[in-house]
Amino acid sequence: MKKPNIAKPHSKLAIIPLGGLEQIGLNITAFEYEDSIIVVDCGLAFPEDEMLGVDLCIPDVTYLEENIDRVKGFVITHGHEDHIGALPYILQKVNAPIYATKLTIALIEKKLEEHGLTKTVKRKVIAHGQSINLGQFRIEFIQTNHSIADAAALAIYSPAGIVVHTGDFKVDYTPVYGDAIDLQRFGEIGKKGVLALMCDSTNAEREGFTKSEKTIGKIFDEIFGDHPENRLIIATFASNVDRVQQIVNTAHRYGRKVAVEGRSMVNVIETATELGYIMVPENTLVDLNDLKNYPDEKTVIITTGSQGESMAALSRMAQSIHRKVTIKPTDTVVFSSTPIPGNEKAVDKVINELEAQGAEVIFQDVHVSGHACREEIKLIYSLVKPKYAIPVHGEIRHRHAQARIAKELGYDTEHIILMHSGDVLEIADDITPKIAGRVQTGAVYVDGLGVGDVGSTVLHDRQHLAEDGVVVIALAMERGTNQVLSGPDIISRGFVYVREADELMEDATGVLEDTIEELQGRNVNDWGKIKQALRENLSSYIWQKTKRRPMILPVIMEI
Amino acid sequence: MKKPNIAKPHSKLAIIPLGGLEQIGLNITAFEYEDSIIVVDCGLAFPEDEMLGVDLCIPDVTYLEENIDRVKGFVITHGHEDHIGALPYILQKVNAPIYATKLTIALIEKKLEEHGLTKTVKRKVIAHGQSINLGQFRIEFIQTNHSIADAAALAIYSPAGIVVHTGDFKVDYTPVYGDAIDLQRFGEIGKKGVLALMCDSTNAEREGFTKSEKTIGKIFDEIFGDHPENRLIIATFASNVDRVQQIVNTAHRYGRKVAVEGRSMVNVIETATELGYIMVPENTLVDLNDLKNYPDEKTVIITTGSQGESMAALSRMAQSIHRKVTIKPTDTVVFSSTPIPGNEKAVDKVINELEAQGAEVIFQDVHVSGHACREEIKLIYSLVKPKYAIPVHGEIRHRHAQARIAKELGYDTEHIILMHSGDVLEIADDITPKIAGRVQTGAVYVDGLGVGDVGSTVLHDRQHLAEDGVVVIALAMERGTNQVLSGPDIISRGFVYVREADELMEDATGVLEDTIEELQGRNVNDWGKIKQALRENLSSYIWQKTKRRPMILPVIMEI
Repeated sequence: MKKPNIAKPHSKLAIIPLGGLEQIGLNITAFEYEDSIIVVDCGLAFPEDEMLGVDLCIPDVTYLEENIDRVKGFVITHGHEDHIGALPYILQKVNAPIYATKLTIALIEKKLEEHGLTKTVKRKVIAHGQSINLGQFRIEFIQTNHSIADAAALAIYSPAGIVVHTGDFKVDYTPVYGDAIDLQRFGEIGKKGVLALMCDSTNAEREGFTKSEKTIGKIFDEIFGDHPENRLIIATFASNVDRVQQIVNTAHRYGRKVAVEGRSMVNVIETATELGYIMVPENTLVDLNDLKNYPDEKTVIITTGSQGESMAALSRMAQSIHRKVTIKPTDTVVFSSTPIPGNEKAVDKVINELEAQGAEVIFQDVHVSGHACREEIKLIYSLVKPKYAIPVHGEIRHRHAQARIAKELGYDTEHIILMHSGDVLEIADDITPKIAGRVQTGAVYVDGLGVGDVGSTVLHDRQHLAEDGVVVIALAMERGTNQVLSGPDIISRGFVYVREADELMEDATGVLEDTIEELQGRNVNDWGKIKQALRENLSSYIWQKTKRRPMILPVIMEI
Repeated sequence: MKKPNIAKPHSKLAIIPLGGLEQIGLNITAFEYEDSIIVVDCGLAFPEDEMLGVDLCIPDVTYLEENIDRVKGFVITHGHEDHIGALPYILQKVNAPIYATKLTIALIEKKLEEHGLTKTVKRKVIAHGQSINLGQFRIEFIQTNHSIADAAALAIYSPAGIVVHTGDFKVDYTPVYGDAIDLQRFGEIGKKGVLALMCDSTNAEREGFTKSEKTIGKIFDEIFGDHPENRLIIATFASNVDRVQQIVNTAHRYGRKVAVEGRSMVNVIETATELGYIMVPENTLVDLNDLKNYPDEKTVIITTGSQGESMAALSRMAQSIHRKVTIKPTDTVVFSSTPIPGNEKAVDKVINELEAQGAEVIFQDVHVSGHACREEIKLIYSLVKPKYAIPVHGEIRHRHAQARIAKELGYDTEHIILMHSGDVLEIADDITPKIAGRVQTGAVYVDGLGVGDVGSTVLHDRQHLAEDGVVVIALAMERGTNQVLSGPDIISRGFVYVREADELMEDATGVLEDTIEELQGRNVNDWGKIKQALRENLSSYIWQKTKRRPMILPVIMEI
């Protein structure tokens, strides 16, 4: 059921999170002023456990579709899936130009290519420090640091005031590539007077500062130094170009050849190398096929699979089903990552499989986060000094933790705004901000080629099927007389191992025959009622015998 | 397929892990010498994600069934589910006496009652320091510490030598209830000469020592002191009687009434109170229904649900579906626990739900582990000084980590034995230990009332159904002529939201009609072949249109 959407333009600035606050990943926020809407980020989410068979989730952008003539463009903060992943799907409904930094645009272009959209969608590379005008808005890109290069915060200038949106960020005074976060500019804009700060909450529960990416380079040096006899297999996030750079640097120093494995890893490194975001010394990178020409202790494999993804290269190596790499007891496998919440068991499984083959696995302290901890969040607040705090990104608990930080900094409850997806926040300097309405939001499920054709009913059925399987009752009846011409037959899948349940199945057929007889005795001819009686009686028989509730599907053929 | 089992008695001591090494929880190990078999522990495991619809897993004890006349008894180290949970199932096949400490026996008795087994199964309470003779074996119970009271290590005396089995343990010099681990006795037995040490590996990856349970009491004092205005809701493991005792102690000091919620929590506290393992000051415990008679700041609720279990009390409170407790913004909820691997997301969900209702959630550092860390493991090795190290408990990675500790302590590879479930390890002082055979082991799935009637085929079908749903093709054909009398009809569940897929379903019916026509043109009369062709053609049509592979079930009614 669609909720009523707000059709008329807002006379104030309106901030409308269209996703990302209930389901992590669906980062997309509309900013609206009169005839102008801009959209910040357009991410996808990976399905939760209960979303059986769903490949990915994208945001519901009905509101943008209904107001498409006012949408001036998509402004993207950085190139992670949870900020760009839904673009190919959403652009097919809401085609508007894309603005982002160089690496981000390059990663978006890969996606547009896959979906055949390169010709229809406009995009423009914006440098840090540059601004663009989109209708009533001006948007300035500010240098930040994150676990992918070229991340940007946005200063969004509107007639109602300035909103600073940090995107995902950390403060890295010594980044591997590019400049440190432009703290001066945050301060300068802060001095102008900022209406609201929308700040990354992901690490708001963590004390202190997130370490510099460069500290991991030193750890690689130690690991390489401690393992002169071993082949090294290092798993990390494909998009963490700086991490890959540091592995390459250390490998080069130790005279090792580097091979790269995993499709997304190969893709990102290709793009990053083309654009100059990664520098590989000559003769360091070799094809995985050629690695056999070098002694193990002179090689490093950089691979995908740091999250235990079942089809990723490292998982295939661990299960001995990788076509090119066989794990040896002399291997040292390094997880340069931490499990994303929900992936712990999968990572654990891969570690166990690697250990079972005798490999040494190093999985602690070879990673730093890309998100700001409490002290960094305080730093940004202190530079920007916004009138209103609007915690964004992270789960509810993380946004609440940022709210508590804001309180510590002296903000009262009235100046801390905790939003929900779909809230229309009207905000300006001369009014009390308020939730002026709600628009339709939510996750749209992508399953195979289908976008949105799997909803709660289908998922509910899949859960039912997953739990106890399916039992089909087949029956042929004569039109008019309702005489049984064939059946009832029972076919089950996922319910019980049938060879051990002969008796159960025979008795179940008896229950159905009795039901039919009883119905005919009462002259019940309505097929809906017959089906219902068959379903109910079989269900209660099965429950009584097995304490299970398979899905029961009665099929009556009319002859 | 059954693997051949070893039928003849071993002339040496044989150690046979019947579970617990591949799937955590199924802790059960047979010790065998000539005509005598004793079984140490008998645990259950909770199903992995891919075991759809399975309620729990118990060990396959075919080997014990086949050698039932030699089984002298079950010796149980402590009362956790992963050490006692399978007893009611296994005892129905292998009825032998149970030996354990007082609290452990009491918890086992609760289980036997539920399964109506109290009259048929013998059990005997053994005190720490006491020994029992079981055939060729003598078993001594040694005091240890763990996250449940009355835990014991076992010294297993056999003609082939002494094996020390630690069970799950930690070293707690200042336990809340009972005595500290009997380190002297470990040393004394070590001096006699120990053939093998089977030591808990769970925390073998963690540096240092596990803190004393008593340190948590101080933390409760702090939390109570810091929250004089709030109702406190504290979630912890039902079986952690000492933890509950400490909450009660602090509550009493702060003049708060304590209510207990959650069936397993109520049960354990009842049992522990009866047996004197927990002392509740008078007028401290009140019924949850009476809590409303006291101001919030004078109350504490101790509850189940610390692992985010969806039906547990705390989860129901968080979702606002608990009948008696409504979360308020002035509540402080404490997780006195850490998520067991795999439960992280579930715990996270509960925390988010509580935060969304405005409650403060404390979830860090209000828990200590019940397992020995690296330095404690080294301590036990140094007291026992076994000839052979056999790491047990924990995942493969943890057992490998203990193997590395043993190496550090000077053991060479020949004296560290890493076993797999089903291995028959022959061991004695005068031989080189060897894996002399394999017996059938594995997990048996319990689903509802069914034990073992859900196997890999059923699970595979459930996974298939869960992924893309089911499509039933129904068809009535005339016997002999194979004329179609009705159908083909298509019914689907969990596949696609049908109202949005009218066209797909119509075209799919067309595909089936064409298939039938084509088969009849070729005079194909074999129903197996007709079903196969219908299934294959519909499947490839659906894949082409949707990139999904629902389970397809053709049903032909013969008239």
